[in-house]
Amino acid sequence: MIEQKPTLYTCLSPSLLHLYDVKDAIVVVIDVFRATSTIAAALFNGAEKIIPVETVKGAIEIGEEMGAITAGERDGKIAEGLQYGNSPLEYPREFIGGRVLVLTTTNGTRLLHMALKMGATEVITGSFANLDAVCNHLLAEGKNVILACAAWKDRVNMEDTQFAGAVVARLREQFTIHCDASLAAETLYTATRSNAWAYTQKTTHYHRLAAYGLEKDMEWCMTENLANVLVVYKEGALVVSPSH
Amino acid sequence: MIEQKPTLYTCLSPSLLHLYDVKDAIVVVIDVFRATSTIAAALFNGAEKIIPVETVKGAIEIGEEMGAITAGERDGKIAEGLQYGNSPLEYPREFIGGRVLVLTTTNGTRLLHMALKMGATEVITGSFANLDAVCNHLLAEGKNVILACAAWKDRVNMEDTQFAGAVVARLREQFTIHCDASLAAETLYTATRSNAWAYTQKTTHYHRLAAYGLEKDMEWCMTENLANVLVVYKEGALVVSPSH
Repeated sequence: MIEQKPTLYTCLSPSLLHLYDVKDAIVVVIDVFRATSTIAAALFNGAEKIIPVETVKGAIEIGEEMGAITAGERDGKIAEGLQYGNSPLEYPREFIGGRVLVLTTTNGTRLLHMALKMGATEVITGSFANLDAVCNHLLAEGKNVILACAAWKDRVNMEDTQFAGAVVARLREQFTIHCDASLAAETLYTATRSNAWAYTQKTTHYHRLAAYGLEKDMEWCMTENLANVLVVYKEGALVVSPSH
Repeated sequence: MIEQKPTLYTCLSPSLLHLYDVKDAIVVVIDVFRATSTIAAALFNGAEKIIPVETVKGAIEIGEEMGAITAGERDGKIAEGLQYGNSPLEYPREFIGGRVLVLTTTNGTRLLHMALKMGATEVITGSFANLDAVCNHLLAEGKNVILACAAWKDRVNMEDTQFAGAVVARLREQFTIHCDASLAAETLYTATRSNAWAYTQKTTHYHRLAAYGLEKDMEWCMTENLANVLVVYKEGALVVSPSH
């Protein structure tokens, strides 16, 4: 009997998600700068749950309703009417422990809702901060996987692609991977690893965020396993799930 | 006075073309396996012109009307009703010299028509076979450039991305490139260059075409400057344009 391995695909932009069989897969939503990094940080530091919302208006309303902390940025600044930003460094344990966070981001939240709407078996979030937790979960579940990059306004970006590559490099043997996007992601991850921070400084997102003085944020976001929790979407919120 | 450099973007799939300002740019249509390689080969070997057509039916009709050679494959075989295939090796000078070729391909032709419809300033075709001619033209024109990969049924593919990377590597200094897809393409090209043929064997398209015994075709398509002519779309046909 030949054991059938599950499949793994990498989707480099939300605009390409319709090409993949989302219905039959665990979708890993990847938004390294900075939504899924901040989500991992806040949950690692004890947040009860995080409610991802697409609009600032929606975040204010839900925040008031639930008495929750509201957070989100537009153009690198805390959005008007919200309390906090989209930095993983803003959510230490003494602040976020036991609290509910309503977070609005653009690219990442939209992609998460797309995956849900398309009927994904499960949606989890991934970033370098929780790389090992993501990989261990995918290995243990043994289901089909789609690594879905949030990208930047649908344009392919480097840091999300590199994270997908980090996952591919760890899962290659246990999955069937007939997918050039996965091959590209893995090659980009391995080829740039020894020189990662200098390479990041060549990316478009680096220039965008460095203009707001967010270099430290980005360094944190590119470091592996600083907030190593498995983050799963359940009943409208992102929560920590016991990892394997 | 600061000299303004033209911009260069890489679009990794036709599904992403709407994100770019096609109207103001030279679009390089890239379909390495094998449409744009075959086009370069036939024109290099003296074909008068090549008429790209989307459907087999359309190719038969136009071929009859013009008394032209008709060519195109579906699923690795010459399509029913057509005379020749989509291999660069099928078009030596003694056969194609002075003739008109009506060629139907799927991914490449569709992308070419998309770029025309979106009002591209100029559409040229690119592949490793005419790498230098493409680069010399873009450098001489000094206009904005979009490297548009035909991909495979809209999924990002490796060989088109690598060719885009080869162009980026040669044009980097003369263009403003704020585009992670271009950075990714360049890194993939340079990181795999010393080991190119072995790496190609990891791609999805290699497996698809090797199943039809087309390894020699692919080796030809991955070799630089074997049919080094500038190919421009003019009045419904692809023709050789005097290069710079």
